[in-house]
Amino acid sequence: MAEDRSGQTVVMFISERTGTDPAGYAEAAARMDALAAQQPGYRGVDHVGNDQAQAITLSYWADEASAVAWRKHPEHAETREAGRGRWYSWYMLHVAEIGRSYSWQRP
Amino acid sequence: MAEDRSGQTVVMFISERTGTDPAGYAEAAARMDALAAQQPGYRGVDHVGNDQAQAITLSYWADEASAVAWRKHPEHAETREAGRGRWYSWYMLHVAEIGRSYSWQRP
Repeated sequence: MAEDRSGQTVVMFISERTGTDPAGYAEAAARMDALAAQQPGYRGVDHVGNDQAQAITLSYWADEASAVAWRKHPEHAETREAGRGRWYSWYMLHVAEIGRSYSWQRP
Repeated sequence: MAEDRSGQTVVMFISERTGTDPAGYAEAAARMDALAAQQPGYRGVDHVGNDQAQAITLSYWADEASAVAWRKHPEHAETREAGRGRWYSWYMLHVAEIGRSYSWQRP
């Protein structure tokens, strides 16, 4: 909370899953979360998923180069292939640099 | 689906609600969705909310100016005040210009 992310690179991942192989998906997702957090330039993640297998994940990076490096990570690339093969119906992905960042918390 | 949003401005709204006044919230949210869609430069929205009252909403705009104009819209500003007064525990908001955009759909 209350993080100013101005200047960070954000990768927006909007997805819907097929519902196939939920255990395999959950295991891979947990592994990817942990692996991403170990990468240089990782700055955090926000994730919300609903019970219709739709989700939005925002991952934050120090800069474009660190986001690209994570995309090219061999284990991430392999898992992405598995995701296309099994878990996802569709996804969209947008990459952007954050210009302004606000937050508010109930006093 | 399958939209290339390169060059669009995105407003990322990450929030958690208090759970107070769900009917009032739902009514205001529907009204804001409809009103936003009528604004110049509106390009769409992606929204996922879960059953713990957390949500991520991405709204897309032709440019920064149209996103700022929506922020300043009197009815939107009034509803935002109501949101801080009643509905939200906290929120974060990031504004960014999309540099790259991909999508994939199961063949």
